[in-house]
Amino acid sequence: MAKVIKFLEEEILPAVKVAHAQIPDDPIKRWQTVIPVVEELKAKAKKQGLWNLFLSKAHYPEFGVPLSNLEYAVMAEVLAHAGHIGPQAMNCSAPDTGNMEVLARYGSPEQQRTWLVPLLNGEIRSAFAMTEKNVASSDATNIRTSIRQEGNEIVINGHKWWISGAGDPRTRVHLVMGKSDPNNKSAYNQQSVVIVPADAPGVKVVRPMNVFGYDDAPEGHCEVIYDNVRVPLSNLVLGWGRGFEIIQGRLGPGRIHHCMRTIGVAQASLNLMLQRVTDPSRKTFGKYLHQHGTVVADIAKSRAEIESARLLVLSAALQIDKYKAKGALKEIGIAKFIVPEMALTVIDRAIQAFGAEGVSQDTELAYRYAGIRTLRIADGPDAVHIQQVGERELKRAPGLVKKAQEIKKKENALFKKHGIKAHL
Amino acid sequence: MAKVIKFLEEEILPAVKVAHAQIPDDPIKRWQTVIPVVEELKAKAKKQGLWNLFLSKAHYPEFGVPLSNLEYAVMAEVLAHAGHIGPQAMNCSAPDTGNMEVLARYGSPEQQRTWLVPLLNGEIRSAFAMTEKNVASSDATNIRTSIRQEGNEIVINGHKWWISGAGDPRTRVHLVMGKSDPNNKSAYNQQSVVIVPADAPGVKVVRPMNVFGYDDAPEGHCEVIYDNVRVPLSNLVLGWGRGFEIIQGRLGPGRIHHCMRTIGVAQASLNLMLQRVTDPSRKTFGKYLHQHGTVVADIAKSRAEIESARLLVLSAALQIDKYKAKGALKEIGIAKFIVPEMALTVIDRAIQAFGAEGVSQDTELAYRYAGIRTLRIADGPDAVHIQQVGERELKRAPGLVKKAQEIKKKENALFKKHGIKAHL
Amino acid sequence: MAKVIKFLEEEILPAVKVAHAQIPDDPIKRWQTVIPVVEELKAKAKKQGLWNLFLSKAHYPEFGVPLSNLEYAVMAEVLAHAGHIGPQAMNCSAPDTGNMEVLARYGSPEQQRTWLVPLLNGEIRSAFAMTEKNVASSDATNIRTSIRQEGNEIVINGHKWWISGAGDPRTRVHLVMGKSDPNNKSAYNQQSVVIVPADAPGVKVVRPMNVFGYDDAPEGHCEVIYDNVRVPLSNLVLGWGRGFEIIQGRLGPGRIHHCMRTIGVAQASLNLMLQRVTDPSRKTFGKYLHQHGTVVADIAKSRAEIESARLLVLSAALQIDKYKAKGALKEIGIAKFIVPEMALTVIDRAIQAFGAEGVSQDTELAYRYAGIRTLRIADGPDAVHIQQVGERELKRAPGLVKKAQEIKKKENALFKKHGIKAHL
Amino acid sequence: MAKVIKFLEEEILPAVKVAHAQIPDDPIKRWQTVIPVVEELKAKAKKQGLWNLFLSKAHYPEFGVPLSNLEYAVMAEVLAHAGHIGPQAMNCSAPDTGNMEVLARYGSPEQQRTWLVPLLNGEIRSAFAMTEKNVASSDATNIRTSIRQEGNEIVINGHKWWISGAGDPRTRVHLVMGKSDPNNKSAYNQQSVVIVPADAPGVKVVRPMNVFGYDDAPEGHCEVIYDNVRVPLSNLVLGWGRGFEIIQGRLGPGRIHHCMRTIGVAQASLNLMLQRVTDPSRKTFGKYLHQHGTVVADIAKSRAEIESARLLVLSAALQIDKYKAKGALKEIGIAKFIVPEMALTVIDRAIQAFGAEGVSQDTELAYRYAGIRTLRIADGPDAVHIQQVGERELKRAPGLVKKAQEIKKKENALFKKHGIKAHL
Repeated sequence: MAKVIKFLEEEILPAVKVAHAQIPDDPIKRWQTVIPVVEELKAKAKKQGLWNLFLSKAHYPEFGVPLSNLEYAVMAEVLAHAGHIGPQAMNCSAPDTGNMEVLARYGSPEQQRTWLVPLLNGEIRSAFAMTEKNVASSDATNIRTSIRQEGNEIVINGHKWWISGAGDPRTRVHLVMGKSDPNNKSAYNQQSVVIVPADAPGVKVVRPMNVFGYDDAPEGHCEVIYDNVRVPLSNLVLGWGRGFEIIQGRLGPGRIHHCMRTIGVAQASLNLMLQRVTDPSRKTFGKYLHQHGTVVADIAKSRAEIESARLLVLSAALQIDKYKAKGALKEIGIAKFIVPEMALTVIDRAIQAFGAEGVSQDTELAYRYAGIRTLRIADGPDAVHIQQVGERELKRAPGLVKKAQEIKKKENALFKKHGIKAHL
Repeated sequence: MAKVIKFLEEEILPAVKVAHAQIPDDPIKRWQTVIPVVEELKAKAKKQGLWNLFLSKAHYPEFGVPLSNLEYAVMAEVLAHAGHIGPQAMNCSAPDTGNMEVLARYGSPEQQRTWLVPLLNGEIRSAFAMTEKNVASSDATNIRTSIRQEGNEIVINGHKWWISGAGDPRTRVHLVMGKSDPNNKSAYNQQSVVIVPADAPGVKVVRPMNVFGYDDAPEGHCEVIYDNVRVPLSNLVLGWGRGFEIIQGRLGPGRIHHCMRTIGVAQASLNLMLQRVTDPSRKTFGKYLHQHGTVVADIAKSRAEIESARLLVLSAALQIDKYKAKGALKEIGIAKFIVPEMALTVIDRAIQAFGAEGVSQDTELAYRYAGIRTLRIADGPDAVHIQQVGERELKRAPGLVKKAQEIKKKENALFKKHGIKAHL
Repeated sequence: MAKVIKFLEEEILPAVKVAHAQIPDDPIKRWQTVIPVVEELKAKAKKQGLWNLFLSKAHYPEFGVPLSNLEYAVMAEVLAHAGHIGPQAMNCSAPDTGNMEVLARYGSPEQQRTWLVPLLNGEIRSAFAMTEKNVASSDATNIRTSIRQEGNEIVINGHKWWISGAGDPRTRVHLVMGKSDPNNKSAYNQQSVVIVPADAPGVKVVRPMNVFGYDDAPEGHCEVIYDNVRVPLSNLVLGWGRGFEIIQGRLGPGRIHHCMRTIGVAQASLNLMLQRVTDPSRKTFGKYLHQHGTVVADIAKSRAEIESARLLVLSAALQIDKYKAKGALKEIGIAKFIVPEMALTVIDRAIQAFGAEGVSQDTELAYRYAGIRTLRIADGPDAVHIQQVGERELKRAPGLVKKAQEIKKKENALFKKHGIKAHL
Repeated sequence: MAKVIKFLEEEILPAVKVAHAQIPDDPIKRWQTVIPVVEELKAKAKKQGLWNLFLSKAHYPEFGVPLSNLEYAVMAEVLAHAGHIGPQAMNCSAPDTGNMEVLARYGSPEQQRTWLVPLLNGEIRSAFAMTEKNVASSDATNIRTSIRQEGNEIVINGHKWWISGAGDPRTRVHLVMGKSDPNNKSAYNQQSVVIVPADAPGVKVVRPMNVFGYDDAPEGHCEVIYDNVRVPLSNLVLGWGRGFEIIQGRLGPGRIHHCMRTIGVAQASLNLMLQRVTDPSRKTFGKYLHQHGTVVADIAKSRAEIESARLLVLSAALQIDKYKAKGALKEIGIAKFIVPEMALTVIDRAIQAFGAEGVSQDTELAYRYAGIRTLRIADGPDAVHIQQVGERELKRAPGLVKKAQEIKKKENALFKKHGIKAHL
């Protein structure tokens, strides 16, 4: 852990602005860039063994490192101080992490050799193609991309968007989710996942989607059309109709990692705010910024909200370590809707303390805000998680009613014994 | 723990309404009542060893029970489901708990024999007299009650209010805080604490203070005048000028116990809400209450907020176990302003689900709301704790600035090495 | 208007605490009291013509005074500074106001002579019995009280609660709503309203309901059983099956009057807070309260929220003056759920500024909070009004879609004309 | 008004996306663009007399149009449905509007001929240079730009940023605020305003500032250095030391216009949300979006908040019409901090209803959010306005105390008369 922090502070953080400066402004060239300083960081991190830390040995004995979810969660928070650069430097960045987990758990030996090994080595990157255009994709049964067998080949047709990483010149492979059996009685057996090389004929990256005004080049979140794309049958992952099972396993820990990074972003933003409001050159009306009205209260609330959200996430990570993602659904669901909103509030306060500089390119704050705003939508919008947590809670009602009736019975006996007529 | 829950559900909860029914409506008699069903509970609890559980053996080897703060915190949450009755039944109710801690830690052998032993036995009750009328008591240097030596006696003159327990016929002793040395240079050495028998001449209980419309008879929170009250010199606690030290030791764990009870009250209110919104007889427009609009979302948010506040409190309790109250000031401060506000929100949602019944005497909800509303004021109002947490946080700024400068230096070197002119 | 303010400040406000002091503590006697100082005020107000100002001549040419809803709204705000006493002094207090409106609009000449005239004279008071125990009464079709004809008599059986005024010794008449035709195909023609003398055999006032510990004696909000109560056929109001029509006419302006009083209560609470935070005797740590942290911000927000809510209510009152209550449903609905929540926030801030005194009987603040908390439930809970405003808004969607399509068509033409290929 | 709405819907709205498409992606060329479709709109609007509507004849008899502030406020809301394009089309866009007001009110005849006339004709655009880099500019006394006379010339040196319009190829003139007399005893007489041609030697546009990733090309908000810029003495506006006076007159109505546009943006966003949640193709789990959980409640709250904020702004506009900006400071201050926060909430809800599309370039929502977020900072951050409104409110305290004392005196007399001993 101390090693990670040292590497972060001495190597990664000084490289963040350099990395941004190495992405050209030109609307074409910025998508063809492999950022030199990031490649340097990767080489250093690999040498120091700070590599693939997301992959828990407990779950992936063959490929993993000996870290629990709880330990990785703490690490993910720390790395998030360096935005996208931190995770990339140590080969822990989404969507590659989830894709590596899928290939490590469900991939055939050939699939692992061809795609997992270069991913684990940080030689290539990858995309995960699930979200579809003009489709309410929070309901997975709405997916329309078609995946069907034709002889020895699989043919893919579909229109996706928000495919993270699809713009990156290093991306060599897409994992594509679609419907292989749309008439299957079970809505959860209709989907399959297929491996599609990024340069297969028919894979068309239409345009990058922006988040607020950011395009996140060179990775981007792209609109992609799969137009009669053909891949060999051996590119099917796990088996026909097992797509839903694959994404379930992928999302649980992934959501918690996002949450933990989000805590780190909030903490880093509060740190920035603390420096701003104590800056002697920012005095107005003879006072430091922190001596004005509500600034100290904003800081105290941010501190409290970060602590409290961090405990939620750590407790969910611990729960996953103990009971796997399936046994931690309540904890994951709560963190999923609580943490991003908390972080947005904290960042927004920091923006306000920075004034105009806070919304500009001169701090990371507005960029962080935009990025975390998407987490209230991605992997299921807030409303879906709130609904699920609420419904799970409602299931406690019958037990409570039963207990209340037992108490009532004893209460009546006690009223009688004490000779009082109860009022109700 | 299982034993506590069993006793709570089988003995205490069925007695709650009976206890309330045993307090007469008559404005005089209600203050002269010793509630029979509570005395029965106390006898049973004592027999089962569920007694004085707040007193940690680690801190009070002579009198204590072998429970950590963390363990007692969990217990306090559970007991709070029975309102005031739960803690009383097991001799764990404020202000007695804090007073027993003071006497156990700082009392002379004689003081302990005379007052602590009957308190530990639940034979008498006690009051703690700090808050003063017309004085901004969140600043302890404002205290005006005078405590001075005259020969072998101590003479006390002062006007206090909100003295919890002062109305109770079982209350035999007040611990009174006042100024013995108002001109002492150190504002923290001006105060002393004196033991005053409740029936000493000059102790006048003026009236009960109401909280919203509740008088909390028979204990009450009373206005009390100490008019030339005289006690022997041996009634001084710990020594002259050590009053501040005494209340500091008293408040830390006390605040966390309040927080933990507050979590229990929130949880109990959510439990009630769950029963109400699933009650088939409450259908409107053909739907269960929980199927309408925002009810499920309210439940999910309450669940999330309770979990998250509970983790804060448990983590503060753990911190106290490890580093004493002094080493847990940040954690205690955060919990102190986060938890009551959380509970008020949860209770308010439950009230709304119950409609008019929720504000009435037919549920505990409005009474709970009123009680917890005072916790945003008592033991220091929110603003004081927010200010302290914020200021503690600001102390991190210089360290952050230094670290930022180091990173900047490395960043500049990196820009140079890569041949880029930095923009800022 | 100036006359009202003068009367308020010189006569009513100095009488408020006197009136409270004239209500005995005794649990029986407090319900038998006619408060002397209030009767004095009524006599003075009547003499000055400050009487029945709620009754607009525009709507009630025979009985009314020449004030618009807008003008009365302003007056209601002002009077609310004196709590319940203000409206009573000038014979403008609920539920009498609504009942007088019902009788003035729908009553037979005999009904008006017997009940309306003494009500207009302030000689008697009245109750309106709608809410039922154990019934989700926000859905009026759930009402169970039975009203049926037997020969020349009407027989009433039902179990109501929260019947305001039913405890008052001056109350001589109840307007009772029940089902006369429970099988009528239209859910809105099943109800009737009947006049029941308060002393009719079978009218049993069971107990007062409390609101956060307050019983509001002597009026109270009571649980009432109508046990085989018999009244002459001539006591039917308006006609069989017209109950729904009657309460609709009754609720619209009534809700706005409640809102306007609520604005007054919020304003009076902010006024109190201003006095407290500038009180030189309340200095802590060498500063006035208003110089600490967030106090000024709280005041500014309260100011802004009151202004904004007041504009909403005035605009609704104006709308009623122009288009009757039916043409102002949107405005009334919005005010109904916005105003009480605003006032609760403002009062809560004032309570916090007052500390313990704020929750006690020594200020009006906690009592106000409790009273206004019920307005989020009474006359339809927040959720119902929010749902209705939302649904009304959704009806605008088709028009917006149509307009968007027209614009899209023109847009396409423009793209073509300028030789650009649109992206979407 | 109907004419404006017709022009908006038939001409402007269909042109919005076309206008955006006519701005090139290229990082150089996008700053050299005069958007063809906007120039067409301007020609049409001028022909129809929909031109310079912001300039009230009441205040500017020579140049103005016969509209009150209230009427223009309504118009500004409507035009805001078309984003920046609406105001530009009708020559009502900031910062030109404020600059024209300054020149119309304070400009010399020569200044008016040279700069005001082409601005009024929409032939050129302009910038207002006040905000400075690394300076806490919410405190105007912090300004560092130097403006000094050298012979017949004025020499300007300063480093500004966030200069809106400075990037636009049509911008020909900057109004620059700086210190001409930094040692003047009155902090409000140290500043002067000077007219600087955009192409004067020494005017260096350094870079555009981004707002959440948006650069707002071609206008932009630019960093600008004035490096020994020299202009003739006749370019001084109004007189030496009158800079503060000039910006005061400029900001009042300007803030309200911003507020009114903000209302329009909120309304347009709610309109979009209504269309989305009723879109049959967006059904999830068999339900329309608006049938899920909290969507209707979100819509109702947005409706209520927009109505209420609009009333605040209209009331402030009316106040300005009656008493000039100086007599409407409270109303303007309240609107300034209430309206943008309201709009951000409404837009955020709309974003959430749109999912990923809501944060992308395919709706205007994220762009609107970013734009309005700056309004919590520009023209004084929220905290400054909140502080001022709060302090103004505190001035009411002494009057309230005096009135309370008078009431107390009467109250005491009344207690005595009724023979009661008051409790306090």
